[in-house]
Amino acid sequence: MTEQRRGLLIILSSPSGAGKSTLAKRLMAWDATLRFSVSATTRAPREGEQDGKDYYFSSVEDFQKSVSEGEMLEHARVFGNYYGSPIEPVQSAIEDGRDVLFDIDWQGAQQIGKSALRENVLSIFILPPSITELHNRLVARGQDSDAVITDRMNKSWDEISHWDGYDYVLVNDDLDATETRLKTIIEAERMRSAQQPWLTEFVRGLQSEFEETT
Amino acid sequence: MTEQRRGLLIILSSPSGAGKSTLAKRLMAWDATLRFSVSATTRAPREGEQDGKDYYFSSVEDFQKSVSEGEMLEHARVFGNYYGSPIEPVQSAIEDGRDVLFDIDWQGAQQIGKSALRENVLSIFILPPSITELHNRLVARGQDSDAVITDRMNKSWDEISHWDGYDYVLVNDDLDATETRLKTIIEAERMRSAQQPWLTEFVRGLQSEFEETT
Repeated sequence: MTEQRRGLLIILSSPSGAGKSTLAKRLMAWDATLRFSVSATTRAPREGEQDGKDYYFSSVEDFQKSVSEGEMLEHARVFGNYYGSPIEPVQSAIEDGRDVLFDIDWQGAQQIGKSALRENVLSIFILPPSITELHNRLVARGQDSDAVITDRMNKSWDEISHWDGYDYVLVNDDLDATETRLKTIIEAERMRSAQQPWLTEFVRGLQSEFEETT
Repeated sequence: MTEQRRGLLIILSSPSGAGKSTLAKRLMAWDATLRFSVSATTRAPREGEQDGKDYYFSSVEDFQKSVSEGEMLEHARVFGNYYGSPIEPVQSAIEDGRDVLFDIDWQGAQQIGKSALRENVLSIFILPPSITELHNRLVARGQDSDAVITDRMNKSWDEISHWDGYDYVLVNDDLDATETRLKTIIEAERMRSAQQPWLTEFVRGLQSEFEETT
């Protein structure tokens, strides 16, 4: 019997500036078997962007067809362009026992939480220690005008206000500590019954053995 | 703000001979803040048994009154005696941020899974690597007649057949490895949103801060 586990859909959400991208990079470096979910988009490729690596580039027609045929785990329209997470690469990864990491907002998280793969979802929200800290990090990036920063802060608050409903909510006041906590959570959640489909077969084996010995 | 977490109700179930008692003892030794749920019973105390430590000894009348008034998380009648888990010590422990360990069978686990404290339940089932191994362990205890062992094996199979529905199901083929896995699971589950009631207040603080700065 192969004890092949099922992969997790690991969703990381947070307002920008809370450390999510850094944490996602650290997780990818920690475990080479982790896959990052590449989004599909209808926007034009920018210089240097590779199809299938940075995005799956798609026509509006193809994108809409994918959505209507249930081939997107989640999707949204942002500034006139479509973005979405194709279900097929996720499905085949988790069947191979590989976890897939999603760096998506609360709307995407909610859609995946209602999808056919919801039983394999692990959702984590990263909160900043304070709004001041979040603001400082956005300002420290430089170059942005006050108007742009106000805009980002409003968007950040919209994201924070949807913190509820995630399996785990971590306050990132220390990157190393948060990374350690993320790893413990992932290691534990991989052991959940829902991730161990071979158990059904294993217990069937115990039953045969029991019937033979009694 | 105090980041006082809420304690977990950690349920360990398994057929006898799968290593549950040893694992429960190791967990208690690992974390001194863990509480073991002491059962109430209507059976007479045996020599050396202490009220409040080994059991809460109770009259049948008082026990039935407790059940009817919702003061038992779960209860069952076994060989003419009542056994049950009083809710009050569990409630006060988890409000103090202390986890409570339950060594109970699938019927108790199901009852607690439907109780008012279900959101704080972490349920774990321990399976033996094989029926042969389980049988050997029961025989190795010595003294028991074949009839008693057959009886135990039937009871064990009844327990195993209810493996499904637990949050985690671990095959105990190595005590040390299973112990390590249990600790990882407990450490992660302690971080779940449901165990962190202070988050609501924390996000309210972020909201005030956001409203002041914009």
